[in-house]
Amino acid sequence: MRLKCVVAYDGTDYSGFQVQPDQITIQGEIEAALQRITGEEIQVYGSGRTDAGVHARGQVIHFDTGSHIPLDKWRFVLNNQLPDAIVVRSVEEADESFHARFDVQVKEYRYCIDNAPVADVFRHRYADHIRFPLDVEAMQQAARHLEGKHDFTSFCSAKTYVEDKVRTVYRVKVERSGHEVWVTCRGNGFLYNMVRIIVGTLVEVGQGKRAPDELKEILLACDRERAGKTAPAKGLTMWEVYYGTNISKD
Amino acid sequence: MRLKCVVAYDGTDYSGFQVQPDQITIQGEIEAALQRITGEEIQVYGSGRTDAGVHARGQVIHFDTGSHIPLDKWRFVLNNQLPDAIVVRSVEEADESFHARFDVQVKEYRYCIDNAPVADVFRHRYADHIRFPLDVEAMQQAARHLEGKHDFTSFCSAKTYVEDKVRTVYRVKVERSGHEVWVTCRGNGFLYNMVRIIVGTLVEVGQGKRAPDELKEILLACDRERAGKTAPAKGLTMWEVYYGTNISKD
Repeated sequence: MRLKCVVAYDGTDYSGFQVQPDQITIQGEIEAALQRITGEEIQVYGSGRTDAGVHARGQVIHFDTGSHIPLDKWRFVLNNQLPDAIVVRSVEEADESFHARFDVQVKEYRYCIDNAPVADVFRHRYADHIRFPLDVEAMQQAARHLEGKHDFTSFCSAKTYVEDKVRTVYRVKVERSGHEVWVTCRGNGFLYNMVRIIVGTLVEVGQGKRAPDELKEILLACDRERAGKTAPAKGLTMWEVYYGTNISKD
Repeated sequence: MRLKCVVAYDGTDYSGFQVQPDQITIQGEIEAALQRITGEEIQVYGSGRTDAGVHARGQVIHFDTGSHIPLDKWRFVLNNQLPDAIVVRSVEEADESFHARFDVQVKEYRYCIDNAPVADVFRHRYADHIRFPLDVEAMQQAARHLEGKHDFTSFCSAKTYVEDKVRTVYRVKVERSGHEVWVTCRGNGFLYNMVRIIVGTLVEVGQGKRAPDELKEILLACDRERAGKTAPAKGLTMWEVYYGTNISKD
């Protein structure tokens, strides 16, 4: 039986999603819990990796099991075995052909900036604190240039070996909510560090260090050096992953 | 010069507020920051201790310094030297006679219960998760019995050596806010573990294990064994401390 789960996690104390030797990872914790529950050695597939310190609200995983645990007990049984920083939000049976990574249609990430003069201590693990007020309107203007199908080489870590750096970004939204500024990115896929470099660049626009229209030139240059700094991991959350065909891309 | 600060902290990774040998504490971190900033060995006085794992939004401290740092720079300088889990919210000059502990008039604590079927992972450090829906009305009915001047022996850890266990509680409020249930306690002082034992007992009322009116008998019994369990530290936050005379006690 193939199971599909939506998983949320506080990534602060983990070395990212993917299993790595001698590191504590989200995938590793879930696989260890599954082994304790079923006695089976189960491989977990995620919709994509998240880096060390990055969180998830809607990471999607799948795995196969021969266990006879009833479907409606799985969520409780898994949460009972997982650390508090990892929570399974839902479990459903999936088609044998479903693949959490290969079938992704659209992914949404959200980045949270705590823009209060003094940091909110209860958000210190989940938001990057920037104490001077950001110009959200300028950031929103800049963000529009990123929407559409582009070569995102300028917004990709130079450490990547992916050849094709063309991606389609459906929506980049910047909005203030109380003392927080949220950047939402929705697209058909994101390159290594892409959302964090987008946010780092938009922040420089919000600080008045760059004009909103510079984003056009940065994209065209296809040069990582032209974009801004990579924003810290802690503000980033994998928000939702969409499968199937009827997806709102806005 | 005597300075008074309002301090917020995420107490999860600390052995409480008060300095203890070989432990990392909030007071210890603040005193170390002050020494790096001023070169002076400064003793910090808090409005009261908080236990390991308990948080603060409005802990008040005072200390004396001969430093010539301008008053309006202090907050920034301190936050710059403190870990992300401790934030100074405000700094003001206080009268030489002001004492953060002895001058307290009213203290308010709030306890957060995450009452959703599945825990909110971004609240796992700041709320205790109870997955079955609590009867908030019954809890509120029970809470009323605690208001007023009472001997709170039944709601005090047996490990205490305080003789006088009479305290005045102005307000115990239980309310639902989205998927969270908040218990607010306001009084002229609280005994060791008192708020956590109150919450643990109210939760048993909310679960239907006790009738709301039992609280009357528990108070009268003056016996710790009669009250409920001590609720976990992580849900508790020292919310606000009031000084001076014009204080709303509701």
